[in-house]
Amino acid sequence: MTRHDGSSLSRRAWIATASGVVAAGLVRTQSDAIKLVAEEAPLRQSVDPTKVPGRIVSELGSRAPAEQPKRLLRAEELSSSSRTPLADLMGTITPADLHFERHHAGVPDIRYEDHELLVHGMVDRPMVFRMADLTRYPQVSRTHFLECSGNGGGIYNRERMPTEITVQALDGLLSTSEWTGVPVSTILREVGVRPGASWILAEGGDAAVMSRSVPLDKVMNDALLAYGQNGERIRPEQGYPVRLFLPGYEGNASVKWLRRIEVTDRPTHTRDETSKYTDPLGDGTIRQFSLVMDAKSVITFPSYPYVLPDRGWWEIQGLAWSGRGRVTSVEVSTDGGRRWAQAALQGPILPLSTVRFRHLFEWGGRDTLILSRATDETGYVQPTVQQLWDARGSRTSYHQNHQRAWKIARTGEVTFGLGELV
Amino acid sequence: MTRHDGSSLSRRAWIATASGVVAAGLVRTQSDAIKLVAEEAPLRQSVDPTKVPGRIVSELGSRAPAEQPKRLLRAEELSSSSRTPLADLMGTITPADLHFERHHAGVPDIRYEDHELLVHGMVDRPMVFRMADLTRYPQVSRTHFLECSGNGGGIYNRERMPTEITVQALDGLLSTSEWTGVPVSTILREVGVRPGASWILAEGGDAAVMSRSVPLDKVMNDALLAYGQNGERIRPEQGYPVRLFLPGYEGNASVKWLRRIEVTDRPTHTRDETSKYTDPLGDGTIRQFSLVMDAKSVITFPSYPYVLPDRGWWEIQGLAWSGRGRVTSVEVSTDGGRRWAQAALQGPILPLSTVRFRHLFEWGGRDTLILSRATDETGYVQPTVQQLWDARGSRTSYHQNHQRAWKIARTGEVTFGLGELV
Repeated sequence: MTRHDGSSLSRRAWIATASGVVAAGLVRTQSDAIKLVAEEAPLRQSVDPTKVPGRIVSELGSRAPAEQPKRLLRAEELSSSSRTPLADLMGTITPADLHFERHHAGVPDIRYEDHELLVHGMVDRPMVFRMADLTRYPQVSRTHFLECSGNGGGIYNRERMPTEITVQALDGLLSTSEWTGVPVSTILREVGVRPGASWILAEGGDAAVMSRSVPLDKVMNDALLAYGQNGERIRPEQGYPVRLFLPGYEGNASVKWLRRIEVTDRPTHTRDETSKYTDPLGDGTIRQFSLVMDAKSVITFPSYPYVLPDRGWWEIQGLAWSGRGRVTSVEVSTDGGRRWAQAALQGPILPLSTVRFRHLFEWGGRDTLILSRATDETGYVQPTVQQLWDARGSRTSYHQNHQRAWKIARTGEVTFGLGELV
Repeated sequence: MTRHDGSSLSRRAWIATASGVVAAGLVRTQSDAIKLVAEEAPLRQSVDPTKVPGRIVSELGSRAPAEQPKRLLRAEELSSSSRTPLADLMGTITPADLHFERHHAGVPDIRYEDHELLVHGMVDRPMVFRMADLTRYPQVSRTHFLECSGNGGGIYNRERMPTEITVQALDGLLSTSEWTGVPVSTILREVGVRPGASWILAEGGDAAVMSRSVPLDKVMNDALLAYGQNGERIRPEQGYPVRLFLPGYEGNASVKWLRRIEVTDRPTHTRDETSKYTDPLGDGTIRQFSLVMDAKSVITFPSYPYVLPDRGWWEIQGLAWSGRGRVTSVEVSTDGGRRWAQAALQGPILPLSTVRFRHLFEWGGRDTLILSRATDETGYVQPTVQQLWDARGSRTSYHQNHQRAWKIARTGEVTFGLGELV
């Protein structure tokens, strides 16, 4: 049979054969951002990779030199965060080194062998568990999102919304991992919870001694003592050697570097859940223990600073999730929210996890405002920003799960478009 | 309410309260291996991590200093492999930097912008696709295992089986990722497959110019042009910027650095599928195009070089997978294969992906031979090594999917135990 050696065809001939194909080039800028721009074909690679030996194997793999996604940092002394580059990612899994961080006194240095977890309070047998104890109990693995309740907050209280903001800067306090650990219920059965108990206090071993109250029902239902993340040991910035993991709850409650669980008959009202992580409402009252993350979706493509190089068909993509169960639908609007179309959801759709949605749309070259909205299995629909403000006022920057919008200008430039709607 | 400050309790008091808990210590050795040994409590950490500020955020996360899993390398000039440390991992996802590699002329250095994929042969419109073209087509993500057909091969042809071999050295040419890309069927519809076509030839852009024939039915059914892996761009050693991905097929056929697809009406019988990747059978004939990976399972704990520090309840764990669909059951034997018990399978059970199985057993301190066997949705049961030899002879080192065995000695030391059965 005849073999065509592709490299013997001229570049011109190849492009000629490819006339039906979009010829947009993908150019990576020096920053984290990726821009799609119409461009001439770059010069061809000087060395034919089939004519030179490649490099041999290594103990740890590494990314291609041109592919270096990074977290976006915000650091005020020890209270700091790093945000996942959502627009750079595909699928649902967040590589562990790109998982967001949020901590209040830095990442402690804890030795696996030394770490101890005290479980006490309203229990029959207070006990201390070392890691070798915890890892011997029957294990479970589950894929869940984790989102900081402050994700996407802050900017909406300004008089004028920003337009040049990336999805990473806006909503990058969201990541998804396969978490492995032992159900907290297993450990609580071991110590024997006394009648009348209804909450726990979870305390971290960092310098903030992060402390949060969690309803006992939630803990018994699906909370994990997580020591694994995406196949490997949980990383220091994620709570090594063990963290509490509360599926669907605001990230802060999933206390990292967990060193103490106290079983109680009421919430403890710690500093961390009174001075922070509460929602001042419009009527002057404050919502506390708003722990469940309501349904939300974000479009990751196209988003700022992408530039659509030409009209035609483009696949809008994003992530949707709910702290109340499975996402049942994601709708996309390409006309500022007047009409909505069902996006395709990438299965398997797991409860309390992210789902990637995709929607093909034909961009006609006009100013276009695109939005997404998620619905979960409880029937809850992601609200508009106005609906959220009507319900809760605009004084809180927590739990800002309203619909986002991106504006595609005639030039193809994409900017954050929520300001167009409020 | 009263707060107990755990750190004010003496170590002795803590241990006293923990009397119901197994006190096994987990010691990490200098090598990749982990050994569980009975040991005294190590000295406590000298610095209380709640009393010192932690380190602040960073653009990329990193593993804990004590947690450094590594791939096991085998390199013969350019033909080399790296094996996934299966016994170090949890859940099912393999971190991208620990995914196994197998290549025949090293990892080529290919620029994203320069890479081109020619699709030609029995098509109406031969076309060349650049990455910007491929990534504009509607995308899918799916979680699948990838296994080299040589995985676990080689050692079984020896007169005496080794006993001191890790699951990484034996079966580490297996990994699982969330793969993202465009279905090959989309691209083949774009070029228009001509009547009579029944195979494709897939050609890689490495110095081996790896070339494999694949049935067109498979390609149209579920093959991907994969450019994403676990959320990020596929890495150079996995085929950057794009590889063929054939779910359930032997890894070699999922040609990396894919530069050419030729649609044909017969297999091409390339060097790579005649000199290698064929199975010499017992009757002197040779099995070719044995592409589907049959159901298999491996126990990852306990395995060599773990040492069980004491009698009592231990959770046997491992991975099971099938190239023919979903794993429907995994059975575990703790008496050398006489009696079998159903292991628990960790959901979601995805087709053509790994599933983690777990089985609690009480080790009485005697010599114990443990095995696992997987059954898939076609009803296929992972065979014993003798059954495999009876069917195919012992002259091939490919597709060695028979049951493995581990021997727990009275000392608690675990060694590869298959030799006990043959």
